[in-house]
Amino acid sequence: MKNVKSEKRPHVVVIGAGFGGVKVAKSFTNKNVDVTLIDRNNYHLFQPLLYQVSTAVLAEAEIAYPVRAFFRKNKNVDFFLGEVTNFDLEQKKVITDQGSVSYDYLVVAAGATTNYFGMESVEKNSFAMKTLDESVVIRNHILQLFERADKETDAAKRKALLTFVCVGGGPTGVEESGALSELIYSVLKQEYHKLDFSDVDIKLIEATDRVLPMMPEDLRDETVNVLRSKKVDVRLNTQVMDYDGEKITFKDGEVVPTETVIWAAGVKAVPVMAKLGAAMDRAGRVIVEKTLQVPNHPEVYAIGDNAHFMQGERPLATIAPVATQQAVVCVNNILNSIEGKDLEYFEYHDVGSMATIGAGDAVMFKGIMKSKGFIAWAAWMVVHLMRLAGTHANVTVVLKWMWNFFSGTRLGRIITAH
Amino acid sequence: MKNVKSEKRPHVVVIGAGFGGVKVAKSFTNKNVDVTLIDRNNYHLFQPLLYQVSTAVLAEAEIAYPVRAFFRKNKNVDFFLGEVTNFDLEQKKVITDQGSVSYDYLVVAAGATTNYFGMESVEKNSFAMKTLDESVVIRNHILQLFERADKETDAAKRKALLTFVCVGGGPTGVEESGALSELIYSVLKQEYHKLDFSDVDIKLIEATDRVLPMMPEDLRDETVNVLRSKKVDVRLNTQVMDYDGEKITFKDGEVVPTETVIWAAGVKAVPVMAKLGAAMDRAGRVIVEKTLQVPNHPEVYAIGDNAHFMQGERPLATIAPVATQQAVVCVNNILNSIEGKDLEYFEYHDVGSMATIGAGDAVMFKGIMKSKGFIAWAAWMVVHLMRLAGTHANVTVVLKWMWNFFSGTRLGRIITAH
Repeated sequence: MKNVKSEKRPHVVVIGAGFGGVKVAKSFTNKNVDVTLIDRNNYHLFQPLLYQVSTAVLAEAEIAYPVRAFFRKNKNVDFFLGEVTNFDLEQKKVITDQGSVSYDYLVVAAGATTNYFGMESVEKNSFAMKTLDESVVIRNHILQLFERADKETDAAKRKALLTFVCVGGGPTGVEESGALSELIYSVLKQEYHKLDFSDVDIKLIEATDRVLPMMPEDLRDETVNVLRSKKVDVRLNTQVMDYDGEKITFKDGEVVPTETVIWAAGVKAVPVMAKLGAAMDRAGRVIVEKTLQVPNHPEVYAIGDNAHFMQGERPLATIAPVATQQAVVCVNNILNSIEGKDLEYFEYHDVGSMATIGAGDAVMFKGIMKSKGFIAWAAWMVVHLMRLAGTHANVTVVLKWMWNFFSGTRLGRIITAH
Repeated sequence: MKNVKSEKRPHVVVIGAGFGGVKVAKSFTNKNVDVTLIDRNNYHLFQPLLYQVSTAVLAEAEIAYPVRAFFRKNKNVDFFLGEVTNFDLEQKKVITDQGSVSYDYLVVAAGATTNYFGMESVEKNSFAMKTLDESVVIRNHILQLFERADKETDAAKRKALLTFVCVGGGPTGVEESGALSELIYSVLKQEYHKLDFSDVDIKLIEATDRVLPMMPEDLRDETVNVLRSKKVDVRLNTQVMDYDGEKITFKDGEVVPTETVIWAAGVKAVPVMAKLGAAMDRAGRVIVEKTLQVPNHPEVYAIGDNAHFMQGERPLATIAPVATQQAVVCVNNILNSIEGKDLEYFEYHDVGSMATIGAGDAVMFKGIMKSKGFIAWAAWMVVHLMRLAGTHANVTVVLKWMWNFFSGTRLGRIITAH
């Protein structure tokens, strides 16, 4: 009998199966470590397309990919379904609602949640759109409102049912209000034979003087013009003060009756970050070292939406390319630590930014490169398909976008029990 | 100014947007009547493929088609979202939870619900699979059980978590148990690196001595053999006595610990049928005239799962072809009534029956024609695609079936908030 000594390999625990966490786990698949990837959902969610689920363009499964399917052939990566509730940094344990998990190295890539900036009435009554379930709730709600409006005989009540307010002029608010306009005026208008669609009012509310702040001025203007041509009432310099579920109040005193406020005005790191006990910024992100380590805990890393990383004059934005680039450096540094080597410093390489403003229309910007219209939309499509998990989803998503573009219909318009 | 007299056209109200109800409404689109189609869901559901949603083959939207989309170009057909709670046959009104609707002619095509034959413990603790939401609940439950089993250290508890009992040897039970076997042994087995799949136990329980009673003996035997080769424990002559949510008890005293009992042992007409006040059979179906009229109410018709119609020695089965053939005669008779003509008698023309017993395997039977294996499966696929609503769904569903067949993966394995 051979004398086999089972050597314990370093155990890396990764919290979060978003862009950053999945990239970390994938980068460890052929390395001499064991990985446990923890998420509260059993799927990786392609958040940039949540707005398409909420407006009945795509189905849930097309933007959600089972985490275990990534690691079918990688026996050193295990998945753990559970929600992290605390950390035991002394004992090197992650505490979840399904039990605790020990680690040698920990990567916190748990992502972000909606930031209401302390406005309780808005948090209680508006719709968020950061999770798959939230986007399905919005879809069901919108479709239900049209059914109710179709039966409503009181003109004022009907008008309120058909008023939709998106708050936040970032990509989510811009894309959501544009997609909503297309759903309503291109699809639903054909199918409600008795409803007067001049009652419909879609508003995009932005507190500052600009939408898509990462874009140059001419593309921002283009975005506003395109949205207005789609009958979206774009309101800049307009601040929300209160929303009681029946009417939204702006700072200038204007009151708009509506049952639909979609809040896309800000994000913050998931609350459990505070349990790390490290210094955080106002958005709840841990202020990490240049190596992406959490200060005083060299075995703990924070990346993506969970890391505050200064580069130049301001912290990096909470976008997918930052998370995936940080994932690579984080993996290198854990391997460097194991091998006793020096650690790397992280540096972000700009890949540009883009946003769709309708089927066949987008804006994109990188360095001095700018593009808009159909070319930008085609680029947007290619980039999003490349990042989308699963070849099959690519095929069906392209089919749906084409279908949508040419036939002007939406296939997922079903009200489920959510 | 022309002297225009607006003539009131006959108003036909159709309850139920299933195979029968949609066929009725479609047949009236170019006629001189107004139609209101009522359903408690905003979609037409392709019930024969519910088992594929419950086993993560297809997505919800692929078997659910928005009712209004059928009638986009037909201004004489209106949709009304609501659940029928009663009838006012004197005043010719249908009462719903969203208000009442008056009719000149009424077609009741409200479909069927699960029949527990009075077994309260089973009704309370088992899963039904007659609605879209029920099939999603089953999918989430199964996927969740594997995540729990993966963490469970107690062997007996783990075994119970991995025991799945389908009750009822009709097409639904046969198809569900076969699809479950493929999901578990072909897909999940590859992705749970630590779980021992010899703990998995899938049972198909049938009270009589045969599965698929409409099939000839050799095809029934073939079905049982194929299921057993897929590790489904097929139990004939086995009757369920009780299920408390933790263990199922059979008539011979055997007790099997399980958290999953899928009840597909019977259907009955929706309960509101009793409010029609007409004579019904034991399955709650109204015993209709040969013209499909409800006795004593010549302006009221019942079709499909809501009609008890004797032909030969036994009542017609509750299957889609009966409903759609009855829809045609029902429409003819309403038009005949309006025009003062004699009414037709209904006669069912057998179109045969078929069931899949796995990807690439099915049985089919019509008159003296029999087929099994891949040819029968290809025929099953064509027939189901022809009946499935929407060209786009056809394309994506074929893609998924092909994908499934060749790559052995399932794409919809996401646990949603249901």
